[in-house]
Amino acid sequence: MYVLDNRQRTEASLPGLSHHTLAGSAEGLAQLSVWRQTIEPGSATPPHRHDCEEVVVVGQGRGELRIGGGAHAFGPDSTLVIPRNADHQIVNTGSEPLTIIAAFAMTPVEVFLPDGQAFPLPWAS
Amino acid sequence: MYVLDNRQRTEASLPGLSHHTLAGSAEGLAQLSVWRQTIEPGSATPPHRHDCEEVVVVGQGRGELRIGGGAHAFGPDSTLVIPRNADHQIVNTGSEPLTIIAAFAMTPVEVFLPDGQAFPLPWAS
Repeated sequence: MYVLDNRQRTEASLPGLSHHTLAGSAEGLAQLSVWRQTIEPGSATPPHRHDCEEVVVVGQGRGELRIGGGAHAFGPDSTLVIPRNADHQIVNTGSEPLTIIAAFAMTPVEVFLPDGQAFPLPWAS
Repeated sequence: MYVLDNRQRTEASLPGLSHHTLAGSAEGLAQLSVWRQTIEPGSATPPHRHDCEEVVVVGQGRGELRIGGGAHAFGPDSTLVIPRNADHQIVNTGSEPLTIIAAFAMTPVEVFLPDGQAFPLPWAS
């Protein structure tokens, strides 16, 4: 399956966050996962980390990347670079939905909370 | 550098193709590159392959993924899944610019032509 229609993919969610896995192990990949998410105003990802690098391309909206003890504001049309095993959190600080595409150098993607506990994802990653 | 403004990144090009590297080795990554490209109507990438998996998220426009001896049409809001070392070509078959974001499980990204020759990229990858 080389071509997938994003509008026909399965939607999943966390509170204030809508998720689609665009590609990953279920699509035959071994090295790479790509997700699309929409985070509602005032909502955020949980603080978490992955044992792989992550790049987030921000489409619309504004937010804050909390990482490395700091908070880094971003607007639309930005890229977020998240090192391997860096605890981070993406927060929608704006008044509109925040749309992102996230690429991970791993599939399936494993998620850990800052205390090291595995965070079970409600989607195939 | 955790946050980058995509509008301030360096533009590069191939004939009929505008390119921005959003993240890669120059941004401190070791596992992942993410590019953004716009392909003009009637234009295409060269036929090529990478020694890593690639996922392409199509924003606007229509095209054709030539891979594995076939041609796979796609419209806007699609995902293209490209296996490691699979020769492929992305062609804009529509009447509007084709916008894509491509994620690679490697950085810098190496590109090879179907005959095995390395293709020197005109951008940091």
